[in-house]
Amino acid sequence: MQPAERLTRQMAFLIECDRLKDIVRQTFNVHSGRPENDAEHSWALCLFVMTLAEHSNAPIDLLRVMKMLLIHDIVEIDAGDTFAYDTARQADQHEREAVAATRLFGLLPEDQAIEFRSLWDEFEARETPNATFAHAIDRCQAMLLNCLNKGVTWTSHNVKLDQVRARNAPIGEGASELWTYMSRLLDEAVQAGHLRA
Amino acid sequence: MQPAERLTRQMAFLIECDRLKDIVRQTFNVHSGRPENDAEHSWALCLFVMTLAEHSNAPIDLLRVMKMLLIHDIVEIDAGDTFAYDTARQADQHEREAVAATRLFGLLPEDQAIEFRSLWDEFEARETPNATFAHAIDRCQAMLLNCLNKGVTWTSHNVKLDQVRARNAPIGEGASELWTYMSRLLDEAVQAGHLRA
Repeated sequence: MQPAERLTRQMAFLIECDRLKDIVRQTFNVHSGRPENDAEHSWALCLFVMTLAEHSNAPIDLLRVMKMLLIHDIVEIDAGDTFAYDTARQADQHEREAVAATRLFGLLPEDQAIEFRSLWDEFEARETPNATFAHAIDRCQAMLLNCLNKGVTWTSHNVKLDQVRARNAPIGEGASELWTYMSRLLDEAVQAGHLRA
Repeated sequence: MQPAERLTRQMAFLIECDRLKDIVRQTFNVHSGRPENDAEHSWALCLFVMTLAEHSNAPIDLLRVMKMLLIHDIVEIDAGDTFAYDTARQADQHEREAVAATRLFGLLPEDQAIEFRSLWDEFEARETPNATFAHAIDRCQAMLLNCLNKGVTWTSHNVKLDQVRARNAPIGEGASELWTYMSRLLDEAVQAGHLRA
């Protein structure tokens, strides 16, 4: 591959990834109350890991965690956002997203397609300390927005405390102290009537 | 500082930073045409450096460049976005942003306030290879959006080719091959009538 062709493929990938800004999530931004999109979410997660890395239960490679979080939702450009408590759509979520990963990372030069896919596979498998912490932060950020928005995402979908605890248990697997902190926020949400016990 | 107090300060910083999603820029997203915000822009820049790092003229520390780009616009929460071609507002831009940096990074525990401020200072000074490449990517991403949106940002502000070339010359300082590529896009923009020569 000529150098110019390599850059052309990289730019085609980046232009396609701009679509991530149009993938709307079920969470709401803290100050405006507008629904969050996947690009904003991905930026927030990287800022969270940069700020909270010291709370990881196990040593992590911060650069690798950031790379994972930058690209972890890109598959949603094709596969769409699957709501955290939508068990029906979750059934084939990984399959839909794997097809998307093949197309989207395939826009890159081959060595980078392999690297990006390997990051996404590691995130999905959630077996390494890096992936475990990345998932902890992913859940923590979404849960924080839900708490700060008075539980509107939970109440509008009739989600209860037990479901929220189960969904967010990976926070404790990646960062125990963070899970203690977030559990307190959940208790406060219940007391305030923002989440049904 | 107790561990819980440390985490509380980190969370206060992260919650305040959520406002970055509400800072609207003068660039437009590729596919929706909606104005881009600073959080989306910061995510895009990190994805750009992750994808284009090999084109840096000098060796860089990718993690440090990403950290810089994640936080480089946070000062705009207080200081607002300053348009690239607004020379009047640029006169006191650094001063306004430095005050913002003191307040915003000051929300963090002291060691992190110092680290984040040092990243921002390095970005602003644009003297190291890391900062030079970070600036190249910052200009490149904005210019790419302008090209893809048929120059609407340029024409609506009566900006001409010479100004765009001068504004974006830092791309070449950080990544010569990228500047060659982007210069070709500028020529095409002029030919298509999206930018006045």
